[in-house]
Parts: sequence; structure tokens; C-alpha cells
Amino acid sequence: MIDITHYISRSALRQLVAAALDEDLGQGDLTSDLLIPDDLIGSASVRTRSAGVVAGLGVAGLVFQLADERLQFEQHVAEGAACEPGQELATVRGPLRGLLRGERVALNFAQRLSGIATLTAQYVAAVRGTRARIVDTRKTTPGLRAMEKYAVRAGGGRNHRRDLGDAVMIKDNHLAALARRGIGLVQAVAELRDQLPHTVTIEIEVDRLDQIAEVLEAGANTILLDNMTPAQLRAAVEQIDGRAQTEASGGVSLHSVAAIAASGVDIISVGALTHSAPALDIGLDMATED
Amino acid sequence: MIDITHYISRSALRQLVAAALDEDLGQGDLTSDLLIPDDLIGSASVRTRSAGVVAGLGVAGLVFQLADERLQFEQHVAEGAACEPGQELATVRGPLRGLLRGERVALNFAQRLSGIATLTAQYVAAVRGTRARIVDTRKTTPGLRAMEKYAVRAGGGRNHRRDLGDAVMIKDNHLAALARRGIGLVQAVAELRDQLPHTVTIEIEVDRLDQIAEVLEAGANTILLDNMTPAQLRAAVEQIDGRAQTEASGGVSLHSVAAIAASGVDIISVGALTHSAPALDIGLDMATED
Amino acid sequence: MIDITHYISRSALRQLVAAALDEDLGQGDLTSDLLIPDDLIGSASVRTRSAGVVAGLGVAGLVFQLADERLQFEQHVAEGAACEPGQELATVRGPLRGLLRGERVALNFAQRLSGIATLTAQYVAAVRGTRARIVDTRKTTPGLRAMEKYAVRAGGGRNHRRDLGDAVMIKDNHLAALARRGIGLVQAVAELRDQLPHTVTIEIEVDRLDQIAEVLEAGANTILLDNMTPAQLRAAVEQIDGRAQTEASGGVSLHSVAAIAASGVDIISVGALTHSAPALDIGLDMATED
Amino acid sequence: MIDITHYISRSALRQLVAAALDEDLGQGDLTSDLLIPDDLIGSASVRTRSAGVVAGLGVAGLVFQLADERLQFEQHVAEGAACEPGQELATVRGPLRGLLRGERVALNFAQRLSGIATLTAQYVAAVRGTRARIVDTRKTTPGLRAMEKYAVRAGGGRNHRRDLGDAVMIKDNHLAALARRGIGLVQAVAELRDQLPHTVTIEIEVDRLDQIAEVLEAGANTILLDNMTPAQLRAAVEQIDGRAQTEASGGVSLHSVAAIAASGVDIISVGALTHSAPALDIGLDMATED
Amino acid sequence: MIDITHYISRSALRQLVAAALDEDLGQGDLTSDLLIPDDLIGSASVRTRSAGVVAGLGVAGLVFQLADERLQFEQHVAEGAACEPGQELATVRGPLRGLLRGERVALNFAQRLSGIATLTAQYVAAVRGTRARIVDTRKTTPGLRAMEKYAVRAGGGRNHRRDLGDAVMIKDNHLAALARRGIGLVQAVAELRDQLPHTVTIEIEVDRLDQIAEVLEAGANTILLDNMTPAQLRAAVEQIDGRAQTEASGGVSLHSVAAIAASGVDIISVGALTHSAPALDIGLDMATED
Amino acid sequence: MIDITHYISRSALRQLVAAALDEDLGQGDLTSDLLIPDDLIGSASVRTRSAGVVAGLGVAGLVFQLADERLQFEQHVAEGAACEPGQELATVRGPLRGLLRGERVALNFAQRLSGIATLTAQYVAAVRGTRARIVDTRKTTPGLRAMEKYAVRAGGGRNHRRDLGDAVMIKDNHLAALARRGIGLVQAVAELRDQLPHTVTIEIEVDRLDQIAEVLEAGANTILLDNMTPAQLRAAVEQIDGRAQTEASGGVSLHSVAAIAASGVDIISVGALTHSAPALDIGLDMATED
Repeated sequence: MIDITHYISRSALRQLVAAALDEDLGQGDLTSDLLIPDDLIGSASVRTRSAGVVAGLGVAGLVFQLADERLQFEQHVAEGAACEPGQELATVRGPLRGLLRGERVALNFAQRLSGIATLTAQYVAAVRGTRARIVDTRKTTPGLRAMEKYAVRAGGGRNHRRDLGDAVMIKDNHLAALARRGIGLVQAVAELRDQLPHTVTIEIEVDRLDQIAEVLEAGANTILLDNMTPAQLRAAVEQIDGRAQTEASGGVSLHSVAAIAASGVDIISVGALTHSAPALDIGLDMATED
Repeated sequence: MIDITHYISRSALRQLVAAALDEDLGQGDLTSDLLIPDDLIGSASVRTRSAGVVAGLGVAGLVFQLADERLQFEQHVAEGAACEPGQELATVRGPLRGLLRGERVALNFAQRLSGIATLTAQYVAAVRGTRARIVDTRKTTPGLRAMEKYAVRAGGGRNHRRDLGDAVMIKDNHLAALARRGIGLVQAVAELRDQLPHTVTIEIEVDRLDQIAEVLEAGANTILLDNMTPAQLRAAVEQIDGRAQTEASGGVSLHSVAAIAASGVDIISVGALTHSAPALDIGLDMATED
Repeated sequence: MIDITHYISRSALRQLVAAALDEDLGQGDLTSDLLIPDDLIGSASVRTRSAGVVAGLGVAGLVFQLADERLQFEQHVAEGAACEPGQELATVRGPLRGLLRGERVALNFAQRLSGIATLTAQYVAAVRGTRARIVDTRKTTPGLRAMEKYAVRAGGGRNHRRDLGDAVMIKDNHLAALARRGIGLVQAVAELRDQLPHTVTIEIEVDRLDQIAEVLEAGANTILLDNMTPAQLRAAVEQIDGRAQTEASGGVSLHSVAAIAASGVDIISVGALTHSAPALDIGLDMATED
Repeated sequence: MIDITHYISRSALRQLVAAALDEDLGQGDLTSDLLIPDDLIGSASVRTRSAGVVAGLGVAGLVFQLADERLQFEQHVAEGAACEPGQELATVRGPLRGLLRGERVALNFAQRLSGIATLTAQYVAAVRGTRARIVDTRKTTPGLRAMEKYAVRAGGGRNHRRDLGDAVMIKDNHLAALARRGIGLVQAVAELRDQLPHTVTIEIEVDRLDQIAEVLEAGANTILLDNMTPAQLRAAVEQIDGRAQTEASGGVSLHSVAAIAASGVDIISVGALTHSAPALDIGLDMATED
Repeated sequence: MIDITHYISRSALRQLVAAALDEDLGQGDLTSDLLIPDDLIGSASVRTRSAGVVAGLGVAGLVFQLADERLQFEQHVAEGAACEPGQELATVRGPLRGLLRGERVALNFAQRLSGIATLTAQYVAAVRGTRARIVDTRKTTPGLRAMEKYAVRAGGGRNHRRDLGDAVMIKDNHLAALARRGIGLVQAVAELRDQLPHTVTIEIEVDRLDQIAEVLEAGANTILLDNMTPAQLRAAVEQIDGRAQTEASGGVSLHSVAAIAASGVDIISVGALTHSAPALDIGLDMATED
Repeated sequence: MIDITHYISRSALRQLVAAALDEDLGQGDLTSDLLIPDDLIGSASVRTRSAGVVAGLGVAGLVFQLADERLQFEQHVAEGAACEPGQELATVRGPLRGLLRGERVALNFAQRLSGIATLTAQYVAAVRGTRARIVDTRKTTPGLRAMEKYAVRAGGGRNHRRDLGDAVMIKDNHLAALARRGIGLVQAVAELRDQLPHTVTIEIEVDRLDQIAEVLEAGANTILLDNMTPAQLRAAVEQIDGRAQTEASGGVSLHSVAAIAASGVDIISVGALTHSAPALDIGLDMATED
């Protein structure tokens, strides 16, 4: 069961949402505060305007709750559900002033997270039937990483390490630095294993097949195969032969991902999931009758 | 001269950047902290990988400065400049460990803001020769509104009100609420003018031409013409005849915007500028020699 | 209906009040914590000791609620009401320890805000029958601006812009700077109109009648007439003739304000409302019987 | 030597000043940001407009420093100095934009604190030649207590306890509570002495002379003589005869304070010092030449 | 009645506990979040594993409440109670996931505070029958001083001043500084009495008997007798003869404390209470049946 | 090279230290602020008073720097060095007032961290010659976990996972919960592997030898052998035979640890390192001459 609280604590989520409301409110809602009495009740439907996979409705609900604790938010579809255009996702009912105050922020969260889930679901569908899992990267929106990784999961993807302190990834720049220090990969990994907690895993990037042997000797848990063609990936997977997990990255698009997955890699990481997903169009339709 | 400090104070910007670094760092950079000596020096180029308008390089520079205050960041192109693929935008030089620590966060900011500037520039180009200004909306990323509005400016756009406390906007939901209170628009605007500071302006939304007369009578400063066809817009502009500013919104895309602008409206607001701009591809190339 | 939440969000208000309680509590109430059992119940009346207009009773109520959530606060007069000496404004009932802990802070807020409302009401009364509205300035207590502007409204005044980001005000120092840049007022205002959101208004200060023509040509929304005599003000109002709003400032006192208002200006701004209002004497009388 | 850092830490002071600047800045200085180039240099004099004792110039200096770190602030008179109308207190020189940005906040602090110092100095002068020290109370502006107590010192006064955790003060409400518990004052003080650190002193309020004997028996360090006439105070001082310090409070004004002091009390506490001091009029005069 | 809220406000305590939970949670409980359904209910006993005096159970209860507000925490023994090994101190019942999430943090608080209470109780027992009170020092864990001083009280000790702003303590380094300024102790104390609030007490350190006469002349409220033998302490107590309180410090251990107390000093301060108390072993036993 | 910034960011460390200074300073240093002129210079030596391994001198240096930025701190021994009683660890020189203000907090940090390093070094020495690494646990001081884990490293130990989000640890309570769900360990681990990032490792606790086979089948990376005798541990190590890492916990003391290590386990975790290490006695000796 996907649950956003596995990604961000309730209190951190509240802070994020409260900050977003403050950002949108500024010095107060000049329009509604004066025109709409505090006791005027209304209701509205959160509704898709195009097809997609929804995520972040719970966040939207929290927005309304923080905008006015008297607002009732009822969610009609599960996180991660694929929805039709015009489908009703949730209903909000309560003081109209708070409802209007929360509207924009609630939609801003839901649109973005649903956009990510929708794009992820397209990648996941494209690799169905292969062993590959689609995972995210650290190319996320500053401040929203936890939420965006949650949205990737809602779309059927899996997550890569969350941050630099989660796992070791030795990339080309690190290898260059090791070369300048005159230290080989085998020694470097041995040093890391000695220094780090026994719970930490090590992933090493290669961009040529001839690097694989040393990486295996060093004892990497995962080998990142960067910017390789499907043919190179297939050769790499064969050479590694289960002695380490394999991850493909670079040049991944909805067009190329199936071929990449067919190479037999375990993991495909896709930056676009979080940095270039267009928002899913979601709107709020006020009920004409209360 | 566009300047991000007109949008966000230096201290708020530092907080945002520091929080983004913390988010990416987690419990410390397990890889670089152990493999790369603190005194190993390197340099790198920030470079586009596709064409676009850049914004947020100053933010990227601040990221590096906060990652390690010894890092030198030199920006080679102005904010808002249109760049070729492969163009060098900036150089960073200093301790390699800090450079790697800042890399991802710096690019995350620059890619997103440049993506917004690039899309904005396309809209602005599409309406060139008309009187219309392209403006943003409140459909921004939670937590990043100030920055994103800055990026719109860097792309040649202009800004709408920043938040609910900036100016009055009376939309359909407010009109419905007024109807339930039995109060007409003329009276409502009079009440607002009496209560609010004399510096506040009032914008009122209409979605039918027959609403315009009452809005003019009420004395709106700006009339928001929502979801109208170019022909309707043209009729509206004629009817209003300079007695209020005119803004078009709804159904605006790169395909439709020129026709909308040709109707003679003063302002066109575009949500996609901030909610659906794909990231501009920007990378960091480490120098092989120090 | 005047409502403090139109000036400051509930959460910001709570923070302000909680900080004030912490400031007064220090390391704990050495006296009451040890002498007064947690379950000793009492009640008290908040009462004026001199005549005035009350404001901030709701803030006082919040103080008591944060001092001990079991305290009941019942407000007997509306915000903005004119009260007799000795009038009971509110009753507090509940744990005596919390009641004593909140007493000083609650009164500190209520006395100050009521002091402002009282002085404002005197200015408003002095201009009754003219078209002039009495407004506040930015000469407020650091940290309490939102509350103090609310108190001005409670006293029957209106508000000027809240801060530097609310509206443009071009004062003498800006004019001097423009002169050094070799730019005229007409061009400067045109630049501002091009750069700023269309929702922003522009006010320009003059201290001589011969400056008015250029300011009108530049298209100011409001003209600030600084340190003028009533005769000069009258001449200015005539010359402007409704083409811009008019505001008088400088040399305004309870003695001079009626004459200033008689000149026909729309707005009179008074710094003393917030920087020199003496506290209204308000006390807390403990009931001898519980 | 009076030093504000004995009242508030440098970092807390910076936070307070930064928050005040943010409060006044809002979303940025719309006027100066666009009209005044970042490199335009100017200077200005901080000057009294009426006579008084100045305090808080250092705070004003910090405001300018935080508004723009390139601003130079030179203070010409010492904190606590008595000044003539029109006297130059300080000079500020540097970027004009930052100078304008800091102006209002700097003056707001300096005017308020100087107002307090000025009123305090009047009280101190009124009791010159007696043994009485003028002290403040907890009737301070929420959020500014430390600063305001500093201003009282700058005006020649002394301070009472800062907050509820500083020292024990047993007032009438505590006595009433003790009565309801069936505990006498002697026993109550004994309990307090047993429970509290040996460094804590105890002050007890009386409003009748016949209460003094018990308070002395209980061993109060200070006796607060509340709302007594000068004659009663004199009798109380005689009866106490140096066995405890004596403090007078209630009904203290510039008219009554000399008579109160003549009674021989050690301490006179005055709420008006902080809750009703009018601002000292201080302005900023821009130099016409740079 | 000892009450932790006399040492730290409820909100500060919540912040401390919430921060501790965040520190332990990191990016979420990878194990329980996935393995334990949100609605699985369980219960557990908080139980000593060795004998000691308990303190901080209320803090542990708050930990569980903040870990999951549905958890019920029932405390079975009073703060400050002496407990047997294996004694049940409290029961927790509710969602198992939250229970596991709070377990470690709750025990970390309870073990540390109970360790302090246990050691304090041993010192207090060792001086029973003398006039000496055992008090703590400022040698506390950074961030936890308020709690640790509470634990000392729970163990039967008393508290010294909480921090540098609580009371004056003139130590050898201050005396050396005075010597360099050419100022004697009598003058220094007179200066302090003139400058400081009348509520502040003064303690002066001596490490030789021949210093006592001057300290008494200066009028110290308390004399700190540092690193003296019991014989020296006895001589000091005789010489001081009730004209000031006496405090012994230095070289205090469970072995030496009785002899020190027998010298007749009023106060014995012990750094080890807070800097070297071993944790009391407390565990959480899950019920096998729900 | 051990470096505290691998455990806690510079900014987080500054916040921690600044908060500790604030905690100790209260409302200002009443004694030194008045007695010691701001320009009085002094110097002091940080010195051990008993033998031990030092850690946290850098933190002490930061304390002095934040107490007064003019203070110079020179460290004479490396973190992790074994020191004699009376050895000079560092010198501080600069304004005496700041030096006194920082003294207690600097020592509080250094004493605690050095106490942990000293105890760790004793455990590490006791297992020398075996394959076992001594690691810490989550039984740390709330708020100081990062620092304390650093101190363990300074003492020659290694670290376990930092928090619940670092790695999976399936303990007896989780197994009980799985039993209630009717899910076996093999299935549970498969579920976790499917859901979690590929970088996460899994450790499973057993307290009987007959549980090991299932744990190996499930594919644990590490097996936690809880509360086993050395003989049982040896049997477990043999059975596991390198197919997983082995960790011993429970009943570990300086007396038992050598025998435990001799069993051949890879890791021994010791709660006492952080919850019961007595402070190392470290003092500050002021120079008699400047």
C-alpha cells in the first residue's frame, strides 16, 4: 500500500502545505475576506480535465483542512488510479471562503503530483513484461523531493536512493579523483567498506564494457551502465551475469525505454519523471446549489 | 534590469537554497566525503545540452557558494539570454568535494527556471507586434512562486498579482456568493473601495459579453475575459473601449496565443508557463585537467 | 465586519502570542507554579479603567487560551466599541495558575491596541462630515504592524499600503535619484507601468503646487500632498480636480486635522496613530468568590 | 556602560531586526528596486526633530547594515545622551536603495526606544536627591521587552525582574489563593525557600500597613507597597526599617513621583515608561549632494 | 509536587520530543511502514531492568503520543519513585507501528533522566540528617538542561541557578579580571548592586579561608567554598556564621559527600549528577497477546 | 580521516552550538557583562584532568567562536588521540568575557564526546585481534545522535545504521506482527525487496539457532544474533558460514566483549557507548598572565 507518510512525516507535510498556503495568501485574501461571509457554505468537485493517473489528492485534502478546519474532503478514487477526463476525484464541502482560499494551492499540488504519476505510468507500461523496474533520480523539484518520489510510486515506479547519504554511488568524477589520488577501485571500495556502516550498499558507474571486470572485482552491489546502447547493455548484462544488480541510465525516453528494458537490465532510471512531467489538468467545479 | 532580489530577499533565497542542499545531502555525502580529499581542487563548466533561454544561474551560483564557500562561480551569459546547445553558461572552480555536493541541486534549480524562461520566450515571440503582454498565473510550484515569477520575467514575460493579498479579483464563484447574499456587483465594488486601502485595484471576471456593462459600471480597473474565442475577445475589447484594462485567459496555447493577442487584449495569462514547462537540459562537465 | 484574520493569519497570530507568553514566562512562573495548585479554579473580569475604544480583546482571549487551554474567555463588547471607565469587557474563568500566567500579556496586547483604536476614533470624529478618510502609516511597532493596522480599523480609520511591496510611492528622495539619472517623472512612470504587474497603483509625493502638473501628466493614481497648509491643500485639490486621489500628510494633529480635512482631500495619513498612542488603561479584576 | 547586548544576544537582535525589515519590505520595494540603480550612492543624517534622550541608535545602525551590508553607519552621540531638536545623531552613507529600504524600520526602532528613554529621564530627574530608583515593569510591548528595558536603562532608570521566572513576586491574587488553600504566608515562603534555588529572592505585595508584620516575619527580601499615599508609604518605610527593600507602585505619574520618592522608598516602578511613552520625533535627512 | 512544566514549557517540550522523533525516524521507518499494517493494535509494558529512581516517564508518554496520537500511555508509578528491577512503570496500547516508532526515543529519554534521578537519590541519601542540600550544576547535556534539572529534583535534589542570567557568581577568573582593573571586591559588588535589578543575588567563590572576610564585607548572599577539605569547610562555616549561605563544590563523590555535608555547609553542588550518571536500564516488553 | 562534517552539516552544527550557548546564557551573563570590560584579553588552556581519548575539540572551538568571533582557538591534539592526565588539548585566546561565556558549553560538549570516545576505545582494545568491529546503537542522547556517532568513530569504533530510514531491521516484534498477518519471513523479505529501493539492505534478528535457516533462505544481508552466549554465537557463525554478515548484541560489557568477539561474529553493537559513558574530566585553566 503506497502511503505518503512513508515518504514525509505528517508534521513535515503540514509544514510544507502551510507554507504553500501562506505563499499564496500573502497578506490575506482581499477579495473573499470582504465579499464572502464566514458562514456561507458551499461545495465543489475536484475533477480531471484530461486522462491520467492521480496522485496527491491526500495532499489536496490537507490543504483544504489547513485552509479551514471545518472543510470536509472526501476522496473518491485511490492514489495511483487511472482516471478518465471529467472524472470526479474528490468532493469538498464547507465554508466557501476557506474553500476558495485553498483551491489554487490544492490544485497546484495535485496537478504536479498527478503529472508525475501519469508520466511514470507510461514508462512502466512501456517496459511491462521485462524484468526492468522504472526508478526516479535526484532530478527533483527543490523542496518537493519526498512528495515527488511518492508520486513516482503512485504511478507504479520504484525509487532510487533518496539522497547522497543513502547509499554510495561512485561516478566518473569520483573515479577521476581516485586516479589523481593514485588509488584503484578495488582499494577504494575496500576503504569504504571498512569505514561505512555494514548496512550501506555501493553502486559504481561504468560507461564502457571494459570497466566492468574491475567493478565486479571491487565488489559493487549495483553497476550503473551509463549512456549505453541496447546492444551494449545486453553485453554488459551477460558479462555481469547476476553478480551485481544492473541499472541503465541516460538517453531514456518513452521511445527508447522498451528497447533498453529488453536488454535485461534490472533497473532503468528516468530523470524526466520528475523534471519534465507536464501537470495533469485538474480543476475545481463549484456546485451551483449548496 | 531583471533582478531576482526584487522577487525574493537574499536571506529567503539563501534559506531556500540551503534547504534544497540539505534535502539532497541527507546524512552526508557517503561517497565523496570518504573518497575525495577536502583539498582536491577541480573545475567544471555549466553547459546547455539543448537550445533555450537561461534563468536561475545566479541561484546555481549560490548553491555552489553554500555547498563550499571556497568555490568560485563565474557566470558567462546574462539571465534571459537565448543560448545554443552546448553553450558554456558558467564556470565553477574550487574544492571538488563541494563541487560534487552542489552539482545536482544547482542544476535542478537552473533547469527548472530555464525551462520556464524558455517556454515564456516562445509565448512572447508568438505575440510580438501586438499590444498583448504575456503574464503568469498563481499556478506555480508550491514554495517556488517567487523564483518562477522571476523566471517568467527573464523569459520576457510580465507578472500577474503575486498572491491573494495583492489585488482584488472577483471571479465567478465570488459572483455566485454575492448573488446568494442578494448584493449586486456595483454595490460590492463600492463596499470594497470603502474598506480597502486606496492603493488596491480591482479586476472582475466575465465569461459572457453581456456581463461587461455591469462590470464597467461597477468601475473595475481590469476585466478578465475568460475562455472566450478570439471573436468574442475582439467584441469585448471594442465594447470596453479603454475604460478598463483587458485580460484574456483560458484555452491559451502556443497554437492559439497569436489569434488571442490579435483581438487587442492588453494581457494574456498562461498557466502552462509555470506548471508544465519541461526542464531545459543543462549539465555540468568536469574539466579533465584541473 | 472588521476581523483580525484579514490582517494576520491565525497561525501567525498564534506564533506572535505564543512568543509573547514565552517572553513573559522566562524559565517558568516561579511564584504561581509553586503556590497555586493546578486545579484551583478562579475567574476574573477584564475591565477598562478609563474611557476609550477597545480593540484586541480577541487577542487577549487567545493569550489566555494559549496560557491554559482550559480557560474560558467570554467577550462582552464588540471590537471597536466605545466603552465607559469601569466597563466589563470580558470574563475569563478557569485554572487560576494559567489565568495569572496570561494576565500580563493579555493586558499588554489589549491596552496597546485599544490605545491605538481610541486615538484613531478621536481623529475620525474630528473629520466627520468631510470626505476625508483617516489612514495609518508605516510608522508602526516593529513586529506588530498587522495588529496595529487592524486596531486603526477598529477605531474607524482606514489603512494605507501595508509595506513597500504593496504599491508604488515615489517620494522626494526617489525624485532626486531620478534627477541624478537624468530621467523625468513621465518616463519613470512609464517604465514602472511597463515592468510592474497591471494591478499595481502609483502614488507620487509633491510638496509644492507647481509639481502637480507633471505628476498628473505622468498619470499618478494618487498624489501625496506633503506638509502643505490647508490653503495650499485646497488649491491642490482644485487643480487636481478628481484626476487623481489626494492624500495629505505632515503636521497632522488633533488640533489641525479638521482644517486639513476641510480642504477637500480624500485621505489624511497620521503617524501618531501607531507611534504615539498612549495605552488605554485596562485591568483584570479577580473575582473574590469563585 | 550600558550595552544592549547585555539585554539581548546579538543573534536574537539580528533576528528581530531582520523580521522588522521583512515586515516592512513585503514582496520587495516596488518603487526603489525599479527606479534607483543598485550603484547609486547617497548619504543621510539621522536627526532629532524635538528634544529628548536618545536610545536605540545602535539598533538603527543594525537595520541599515542588514538592509545593505555596504551601508556605513556612524553614530555621533552616545546612547542615553540628551539631545537638542535638530541635533545630528548619526550619518548613513552608501547605496541609496538600501538606505531607503532601511529608513522606516530604523526610525521606527529609534523613535520608540528614544521615546522610552526620554520619559524615563523625566522620571529620574523628578526623584533626584532621594534614595529612590525608577524601575520598569512587565507592561512592555510584546516582543520588544528586552529592548525596552534597555531603553529604560539608557534613560537613567533601573530594571525590575525581567519575567515570571526571574524572581518570586507574591501578589494579592496569590495571597487569595493561599487563603483558599488554608496556608499562611510564613509557611508559603518557607515552602518556596525549600523548593527554589538558593539564588532566588522573594518580593511580597501589601496594600495595607497591617499586612507588613506578617510579611516581615515570612522573610520577604522586598516588600511591594501598592497604591499607597505618600503618608502611608512613609509609615511603611519606618515600620520596615531596613529589614527588607521597599518598592512603591500604583498611581505613579510625573506629578506624583517626587512625593512618592520623598517617602523614603527604595524603588518606584512605573508602567508608563514602556506602555505610554510617545515616540521621540526623529527623521532622516537625505543629503542633497552625495 | 514536582512538575516538568515548571522547567520547560509544554510547547518547548513538544518541540524537543518531536525533534528527537525526527532524528530517529530519518526518512521513515523502512521496516515497520511496510511490514506492519496501520491498523494492527498491540500493547507493551515499560519496565525497569534494574533498581533505580524513575524520572521522565511523562516525557516517554509524550513521545508515544507524538509518534501516534492514537496510542494510550498509562503511567503506573510517580515521578521520583524508587523502583525494583522488573517493575512495570507504564503501559502503552495502540497501533503497533507507532508504538515501535516511538519505542527507542521514549526509552532514550526515560533511561537518561532516570539515571540522573537515581544518582541524585544516592547523593541525597548520603547526606540525610545534615542541613546540606544536594544541587546540580551547569555541567548538563547541551539541549537538555531543563529536563536534567527536573530529573535532579525528581531524585530529591535541588537546583542551582539555571544559567548565567539567573544570578551573579563571581569566580576566580572574575576576581583576576577585577585585579587587572584595579578594583576591589567591595567596590565591584557595590557596582553590581547599583546596576542590577534589586531581585538579583550575588554568590562569590573563595578557595582560601583568608578570602572570606572581604567577601562578607562585600555583602555576598552566598559564598562558594571551592575544593576545600571538610576541615576547611567546617572552619569556613564557623567564620561565616550565618551571615551568608555556604556552598561546597569540588571533589564531591559518593564517598566524600557525607564528610562534606557534616561540615555544616548549606549546599553541595555535584557536576556528576548530570554529566556522568549511567542510564537506568529500562526496556519495553511487547505483550504476546493483544 | 574522521571528520564531524561527515556526520552533521556545518550549519546544523552551528545551530546546535548556538542553541547550547543560548541555553546557558539565559538573559545574559549578569556577572561578566558588568565586571569584565569588553576589551580585556586573556588566554586559557583546555586540559584533561584524567586519561582518555579526546573527541569534540572542534565543537569546543566552534563554541568559543560563536561566543565571540574574536576568540582564537588552537587545537594541539588530533581528534581520537589518547591523552595523559593534564595534557594540554587546546589554547583559547581573546576577549575574556567571551572566553568565560563559552567555557561551560565548550567543556560540556568536549567532556561528553570524549567520554564516549574513551569508552569506545576500551571496547575496541578489548576485541583487538578478532574480526569483530565495535558499533554503536540508536541508544543515543536525544538531539546529539550525529555527534555521538562521530565520537564513537573517534574512539575507533564503527557505526550502525543511523536511524529507522537507513536500513531494514526486522526484529522480534516485527516477526510477531508478521505471524499475526499470517505471512512468513521469506514472503515478507520478498515484498520488501520489491517495494524498497535496490540500495537498501535487510538485517534480521534471531534469538535462537533454529531461526537461522529461514533467515538465510529469506536472504538477509545481516543476521542479528541477540542475547546469545559465546558458544551459541560460535555455532551461529558456523551455520551462517559467510552467507550473511553476523552481528552480536545484548549482554555486552567490557568483561564479556572479548569472549563474544572470539566467537567470530563480524559486528558487536554496544548501547553503553552512548548511554552510559561517564564524562571525561576536562577543564579550562586560565593563564595568570595574559
